[in-house]
Amino acid sequence: MKELWIDLQSDSDQALYEQIYDSVRKDIADGKISPGEKLPSTRFLAKYLGVSRSTVELAYDQLTAEGYIMPRQGSGCYACDISELYQIQKSGKKREQSTGIDMGERNVEISFSPYEVDQRNFPCDAWYRVNKNVSPAEQPELLLSGDPKGQIDLRRQISSYLYQARGVECSENQIIVGAGNEYLLMLLSQILGSEKSVLMEEYTYVNAYKTFCNMGYTLEIARTEEDGICMNDVYHSDADIVYVMPVHQFPLGTVMPLKRRLELIKWASEFENRYLIEDDHDSEFRYKGKPIPALWGNDPGQHVIYLGTFSKSITSSLRISFMVLPNRLLQQYEKSCGFYACTVSRFSQELLFRFMEEGHFERHLNRMRNIYRQKHDTLLALLKQETWVRSIYGDNAGLHVLVEVESSVSEETLCQRAWEIGVEIHSLSEYRIGPAKKTPYPTLLLGYGNLNEKDMERGIARLREILSE
Amino acid sequence: MKELWIDLQSDSDQALYEQIYDSVRKDIADGKISPGEKLPSTRFLAKYLGVSRSTVELAYDQLTAEGYIMPRQGSGCYACDISELYQIQKSGKKREQSTGIDMGERNVEISFSPYEVDQRNFPCDAWYRVNKNVSPAEQPELLLSGDPKGQIDLRRQISSYLYQARGVECSENQIIVGAGNEYLLMLLSQILGSEKSVLMEEYTYVNAYKTFCNMGYTLEIARTEEDGICMNDVYHSDADIVYVMPVHQFPLGTVMPLKRRLELIKWASEFENRYLIEDDHDSEFRYKGKPIPALWGNDPGQHVIYLGTFSKSITSSLRISFMVLPNRLLQQYEKSCGFYACTVSRFSQELLFRFMEEGHFERHLNRMRNIYRQKHDTLLALLKQETWVRSIYGDNAGLHVLVEVESSVSEETLCQRAWEIGVEIHSLSEYRIGPAKKTPYPTLLLGYGNLNEKDMERGIARLREILSE
Repeated sequence: MKELWIDLQSDSDQALYEQIYDSVRKDIADGKISPGEKLPSTRFLAKYLGVSRSTVELAYDQLTAEGYIMPRQGSGCYACDISELYQIQKSGKKREQSTGIDMGERNVEISFSPYEVDQRNFPCDAWYRVNKNVSPAEQPELLLSGDPKGQIDLRRQISSYLYQARGVECSENQIIVGAGNEYLLMLLSQILGSEKSVLMEEYTYVNAYKTFCNMGYTLEIARTEEDGICMNDVYHSDADIVYVMPVHQFPLGTVMPLKRRLELIKWASEFENRYLIEDDHDSEFRYKGKPIPALWGNDPGQHVIYLGTFSKSITSSLRISFMVLPNRLLQQYEKSCGFYACTVSRFSQELLFRFMEEGHFERHLNRMRNIYRQKHDTLLALLKQETWVRSIYGDNAGLHVLVEVESSVSEETLCQRAWEIGVEIHSLSEYRIGPAKKTPYPTLLLGYGNLNEKDMERGIARLREILSE
Repeated sequence: MKELWIDLQSDSDQALYEQIYDSVRKDIADGKISPGEKLPSTRFLAKYLGVSRSTVELAYDQLTAEGYIMPRQGSGCYACDISELYQIQKSGKKREQSTGIDMGERNVEISFSPYEVDQRNFPCDAWYRVNKNVSPAEQPELLLSGDPKGQIDLRRQISSYLYQARGVECSENQIIVGAGNEYLLMLLSQILGSEKSVLMEEYTYVNAYKTFCNMGYTLEIARTEEDGICMNDVYHSDADIVYVMPVHQFPLGTVMPLKRRLELIKWASEFENRYLIEDDHDSEFRYKGKPIPALWGNDPGQHVIYLGTFSKSITSSLRISFMVLPNRLLQQYEKSCGFYACTVSRFSQELLFRFMEEGHFERHLNRMRNIYRQKHDTLLALLKQETWVRSIYGDNAGLHVLVEVESSVSEETLCQRAWEIGVEIHSLSEYRIGPAKKTPYPTLLLGYGNLNEKDMERGIARLREILSE
């Protein structure tokens, strides 16, 4: 019988049975105990170590369950041949220090990115309480593959939210939950079929443009006017699909008036296979007046495919978006995409469902609207004092404004210089998919979602430096 | 000033300030307090309700933060116009009763599905403890968009696991984390480019086949031999890509010997743009001998694209898979897919990282291997007593076996009859992508991941009924 050297630490955080488990396991892994060797009896080891017999039994049970030792009827436990077992050493590399802002090599201190939400005011307590209770011990079904469209409970919450907050009337059966807008566009292009042509505005959400390109779609580009997409360009295009953001155009911030909405719907209804993709990703926060209802509401269930996301209303790192399909596309969805499992983990779906169901989402939206409005007002007040600011537009909604600046330097150079001194900032031309266009003055996008007043002041001071060079 | 009727319940679970908040909010929402009406002072209300002033202040602060009331300097609080606020009623529909097994209309009592993992032995305690600590209060960076490939900490854990458990040597830079194998195949087809031709075995993972079809790839079909894919069919195909499962072919359970592996690699190395996709999704559990290393190890970083998943080692509802790319594909990944955000939530990534880093994953694998081996042995012992069982194959690994049965009834009819009496079971032909092939005897797939001995006995008794009809 093998003699064991176990050095028990009574003042350790680790339970005694775990210390015994670790020690025996290590001896077997290191070959100090060979396969086939007999281990001391639990009675003997308990006495020898001065612990209760049940403590040793717990350790032996765990070693048995994981295949390190094997009991033989009436004869005690023996070490196993562990060459068949997984032995995974820690990677050895230290965990990356988190810098707060993940920009790899770049050293960003102040981020005017339009995609960042407020970290400081995230409802951490509610989130913690909800998340803690999402447990497979309570809900074993969380371990089973769920509904490909997303769990019905969550889709009902989304449907209810859409109806009350966005004016989108749809059944939960029309909703498909997925891991981000780009993934849903990949799915959509499999539903609509290949060899389609999409018309997009010259300034747009570039990732959608790139996704369509990757999916083999033909892309056409329309001019953006004050009232939204140029209808003449729509009429003269060969497109089957027009991609728009009627409630809050990204990045320009324009709102499409009813007349243009109806013109678009009329265009779409002329042929059976024409569709409008309404991307509503930047529409939750409006600081003057009521929320503007979605285009879907002007033509429910017919020609509009609605895309929504929790990226701005909660956070983009959650990766939950959804798509609402007209009924006549559902059959095609089932046929070509029904076999794909939902790309959002069931744990995350349950977390979001409860967050909405318990009313936290509604409260969060209203609270953040107030906070973002204050940030918006503060930023505008600061910008209005700056001599290099020629004009500000795209304000009163969303999480960024556009600033036309007094400078003979190119947008690209301005942004690069800002990055060099720790300020992440983007230019309007980064969101342009058409051929480069010379604008009279450089235009910058200033996102303020994750900035407090002090950071805004510091960021603007640094921009002032660059712009007065 | 408005008089408030607030009915405080001192024995409620709800904090007093929340009761005040709820009551005032409801009165404003219902119009009992009109926009512009003045609310009682906190001092007055506290005295009136017999609570501390700070309790009322907390309630008023929250109402202010969410935009229901507004303080005016030196003059108290006033109700706001809430028509701009989100008012989201609960959906009203009751939560779906969870049935344990989510099969919609079908009433499945016993599931021989090959995709289900053991629910009863899931490490709920460890999972609960790890998950509880994944909190944006502790790690605000969880709220930021992360690395498109997946967080580096998690990729390091995966790289370490792959090296030690699967013989896959790669840097974390070659690993791309994504929401499921099908999503990664969509990504891969965007990396490899369109107009490719893929060769797959006649029996295979059908979802991969469907995904390739959806992505516009040309599909060719090879015969499956005892040693894996038929090399003659490989040599005579026009394919650029061969999709294989060398370690544990799904659904047949065959292992590809070294000779065939080397032949495949030789074929792939003949042209620059030939690749082998190694799908390793069913390879973790082997009940005889050591784990079999992946094909990647025979040709590291050259022609093999490795696909792995946590679907069987943890659970498919977690939706985390990963892909390892040869270095020469990384540039193309950056170029065509670098803009896609990682489809796995950062919260889930952090949870999995910690689960692995704290050693739970290794322990879970070893424990489950023992448990699944016992289930495997039990199922085989039960099946060997049945007269309708002609032969059993694909055993000693994975979470299912194949059973050739004595019956003149078609596979399809057998499965349908089983479903009618509450038994989910699948036939071999469901995993066939080639033209229908008449096999001498029907063959069924019996998955046992989520069945205990009693369920197996009940399930087999029901199959016996059908097969002796």
